[in-house]
Amino acid sequence: MNPDLLQGVHIVLVGTTHPGNIGATARAMKNMGLSRLWLVQPRHFPHAEASVRASGADDILSAATVCPSLDEAIRDCALVLGTSARTRSIAWPELGIREGARRCVDQAPRGGAALVFGREKAGLSNDELDRCHFLTRIPCNPDFSSLNLAASVQVLSYELRMAAEADVGPAPAFEDPDDRPASAGELGHFYTHLQNLLIRLEFLDPRNPRHLMRRLRRLYNRVHPSRRELNILRGILTACGRHLDTTGGPPRPAP
Amino acid sequence: MNPDLLQGVHIVLVGTTHPGNIGATARAMKNMGLSRLWLVQPRHFPHAEASVRASGADDILSAATVCPSLDEAIRDCALVLGTSARTRSIAWPELGIREGARRCVDQAPRGGAALVFGREKAGLSNDELDRCHFLTRIPCNPDFSSLNLAASVQVLSYELRMAAEADVGPAPAFEDPDDRPASAGELGHFYTHLQNLLIRLEFLDPRNPRHLMRRLRRLYNRVHPSRRELNILRGILTACGRHLDTTGGPPRPAP
Repeated sequence: MNPDLLQGVHIVLVGTTHPGNIGATARAMKNMGLSRLWLVQPRHFPHAEASVRASGADDILSAATVCPSLDEAIRDCALVLGTSARTRSIAWPELGIREGARRCVDQAPRGGAALVFGREKAGLSNDELDRCHFLTRIPCNPDFSSLNLAASVQVLSYELRMAAEADVGPAPAFEDPDDRPASAGELGHFYTHLQNLLIRLEFLDPRNPRHLMRRLRRLYNRVHPSRRELNILRGILTACGRHLDTTGGPPRPAP
Repeated sequence: MNPDLLQGVHIVLVGTTHPGNIGATARAMKNMGLSRLWLVQPRHFPHAEASVRASGADDILSAATVCPSLDEAIRDCALVLGTSARTRSIAWPELGIREGARRCVDQAPRGGAALVFGREKAGLSNDELDRCHFLTRIPCNPDFSSLNLAASVQVLSYELRMAAEADVGPAPAFEDPDDRPASAGELGHFYTHLQNLLIRLEFLDPRNPRHLMRRLRRLYNRVHPSRRELNILRGILTACGRHLDTTGGPPRPAP
């Protein structure tokens, strides 16, 4: 993942009332790898409660820019996404949250993108929404839709990180060869071993096998065991067979 | 969206220290349409701070079940997903967060699913992780990875809702109840049965068990056996134990 993608996305909080929400926002941002925080006319900032809730993300708080208007916060951004819980009487153009996050990340290296969050109670004014290219809405229970402000920032920041991580390289190689998935041939030996033991245990009647081995194959094929796991399973079969040998259990089947 | 999908997903908080996190969890759950909350050995509950942070989700708090062990909380669930921030020395089977949420929603109407969250500082113990079919990890900044507990619940609950909203049409019902996935309790009985047999076979040394049972749990949790499959596996264990009884194998362990 290219961390610069997330550095180009700005989080803008407008008219925040509770300083604890500013701190929790900083923590959520830092957890997800974001760092650019703008505070438009916060009620109280700086504030001890913000620092407590930041819980180690103080660097985000001290680098935050306090400014008097939304226009100033978004001035350098090429894409501005507003967040909203309400359905508006005039429909603003909307983007789904996942698509919105992807566009922000796409935009970040070429001009920057802003995600704008409104006041705890009243959200963004229509005048502020006019500054946004798109609105996005976090899906929620229609009977209890007031997400906490920092929780909204958390969800959007998480989607930004998911979008940034979607540009990933090849899957990591297995460090230990025993962690590799067992081959079909290795599994085949296991099934033969298992079948012979089940016959000796008189659990499987070779004249009337029904679907027993098919069911067991389906089960173990589904689990896709590693070589290490297959070795454990074969070890159990061997231990069981050895006890049958020494204690006079039923004879081994002819090879 | 079928709201019942989210009703079948249980949120389990283990050993929560701060009651505020329990309240914020309830709010996050209700915002996303979840309602079943389990609290395993919470430090303080009920508590005024929990009610304040629930901010209107008091119904979730008053319906929450407090219980003494994780086993009790997940007993009726067919899929148990643990959450973890750390990379573990023994790799538990992992699911990506989006895939994990989708599977929980798929599982909800047929047996229920649980999402398990550990302690604020220490997460889940290895013993608790052994109860989980899969681990899931919220992607985050590796240099600042300690998400707030309620923020983690918020992100996962959001993904559950996204998965539920993407779901079209009802999940296929199982025609035969034996095709249902075995519950965690049924799997627990299987592990006890398997462990007792391995001790009798002298394959497992109870004084030096190493990671054997943990590896076997990981394997069978991953395969997610149906009740029918589990019955076959237990039948094999029983057949094996009966042979040891009649042929003078090692004695049964004391009950």
